[in-house]
Amino acid sequence: MKIKFTKMHGAGNDFVVLDAVNQAISLTPAQWQFIADRRFGIGADQMLVVEKAQGAGIDFRYRIYNADGGEVEQCGNGARAFVRFVTEKGLTDKRAIRVETMSGVIEPRLEDDGQITVDMGAPILTPADVPFDSHGLQHRSEAEDNLWPLDVAGKTTWISVVSMGNPHAVQLVDDSEAAPVLTDGPLIEHHPRFPKRVNAGFMQVVDRHHINLRVYERGAGETLACGTGACAAVVAGIRRGLLDSPVAVQTHGGVLNIAWAGPGEPVMMTGPAVTVFEGEIDLPDQL
Amino acid sequence: MKIKFTKMHGAGNDFVVLDAVNQAISLTPAQWQFIADRRFGIGADQMLVVEKAQGAGIDFRYRIYNADGGEVEQCGNGARAFVRFVTEKGLTDKRAIRVETMSGVIEPRLEDDGQITVDMGAPILTPADVPFDSHGLQHRSEAEDNLWPLDVAGKTTWISVVSMGNPHAVQLVDDSEAAPVLTDGPLIEHHPRFPKRVNAGFMQVVDRHHINLRVYERGAGETLACGTGACAAVVAGIRRGLLDSPVAVQTHGGVLNIAWAGPGEPVMMTGPAVTVFEGEIDLPDQL
Repeated sequence: MKIKFTKMHGAGNDFVVLDAVNQAISLTPAQWQFIADRRFGIGADQMLVVEKAQGAGIDFRYRIYNADGGEVEQCGNGARAFVRFVTEKGLTDKRAIRVETMSGVIEPRLEDDGQITVDMGAPILTPADVPFDSHGLQHRSEAEDNLWPLDVAGKTTWISVVSMGNPHAVQLVDDSEAAPVLTDGPLIEHHPRFPKRVNAGFMQVVDRHHINLRVYERGAGETLACGTGACAAVVAGIRRGLLDSPVAVQTHGGVLNIAWAGPGEPVMMTGPAVTVFEGEIDLPDQL
Repeated sequence: MKIKFTKMHGAGNDFVVLDAVNQAISLTPAQWQFIADRRFGIGADQMLVVEKAQGAGIDFRYRIYNADGGEVEQCGNGARAFVRFVTEKGLTDKRAIRVETMSGVIEPRLEDDGQITVDMGAPILTPADVPFDSHGLQHRSEAEDNLWPLDVAGKTTWISVVSMGNPHAVQLVDDSEAAPVLTDGPLIEHHPRFPKRVNAGFMQVVDRHHINLRVYERGAGETLACGTGACAAVVAGIRRGLLDSPVAVQTHGGVLNIAWAGPGEPVMMTGPAVTVFEGEIDLPDQL
């Protein structure tokens, strides 16, 4: 089966983007894994499928698949790549685009400078809704009621539990470059207290408006820049009294700017999205 | 500058292949590095540029660039990708194709089963010609006159020194999966006794016709299957009296079959090459 695709990245978090408005896309997990493979396939952190909208007043729908072939709720960098894609392909001439995702409707916006702002929705801080199993644990204080002790590799790590449509566990580190992202990341991802697994963030506070961040993403390993991870980290930092909005988040792939007015308010993320190349692949039916 | 490319792999060693017969290709090292980058660019172990031949009786010329932007002499998997490419693109209808490379003229052949056999030339076993600086060292025996002691990480490692157009240092290991490829590999690559650096091979002998092999490639790190590395390892194993031709070389990317009749004779390598996808990229002029 021949399919056309576009390779994009948002701050180094890379995507194979498929137009399911003009071509039929229905792939098996093995085919998604093949596409994600960087030597035998195309190579990407995630695949983004753009579809026609189902509901009234909605412009599009998109789905995101991880490199392991599973569908995931949402991804901030993916939302920016989505806007660049539908704009460049002439699928819409709107600047603010209403799009249905697995975790709800969002409305990303193309800015005049080419950056893209995404309303990432209000963070979910209630443990059971993240979901995080807090049974038998005590959070640190009333002001920090989403900060919980987690047993990781035999020691207690304090993590802020935040959902941005997908679950995050954010911890404070002195030096993000020296943080045990590759060793503790998978332990946190698969920790039994996260029934849907979790993205593990390692945040270094530079000053009240700047952080350095590394994220071990669920099903993908460490990526260069996790959009929802940047949002979750800034929310966690503001909740802990360490940061003030807006915050520039330095990742290995580039800078994301995050603004948040407080509980109940949406998190606004602004950052780049770039088209790298166009391609066509004859996808094996059997893998 | 827009250029068309084909993404291919030979046993998992992947290439961006550029047709310089029908389009002009002249890129800077920074542009090669950009192409090789797996998130910001296209992603490949190496780039292969197919050009018109300069000499009489020669069909093509090709050049190979590593992920660090430097041009390299030769690559066996690249030769197979080259044959698949010029055949699929209709650039030739020959089955045996004479092609000029940085290290001389070779004549790869498309087999009936779709595998491709490459005459990799005779191995060079004279240390100074590999090049390897053997000054002050003693090789192990007359029968093993290309086997030398090398000081690596404070211990002596016996390495077979072989050039297949590019330099190789092959060592015997009990278990290739447990071998210190990622730690000793870069130390061997940059060892001062190899003035042009070296590819470091780690060979486990399964029986006299089967080996497992991992190679830390010069300028590229560990790759899934290094063609010249497979040839060098089989030559080293036959010279040491451990193997008989032909030998099936199991790599992480697939199997390569290597035949060698002995000193002065060419090494014949047979293996797969696969087109993964076609693409077009608008390459930044300034990087």
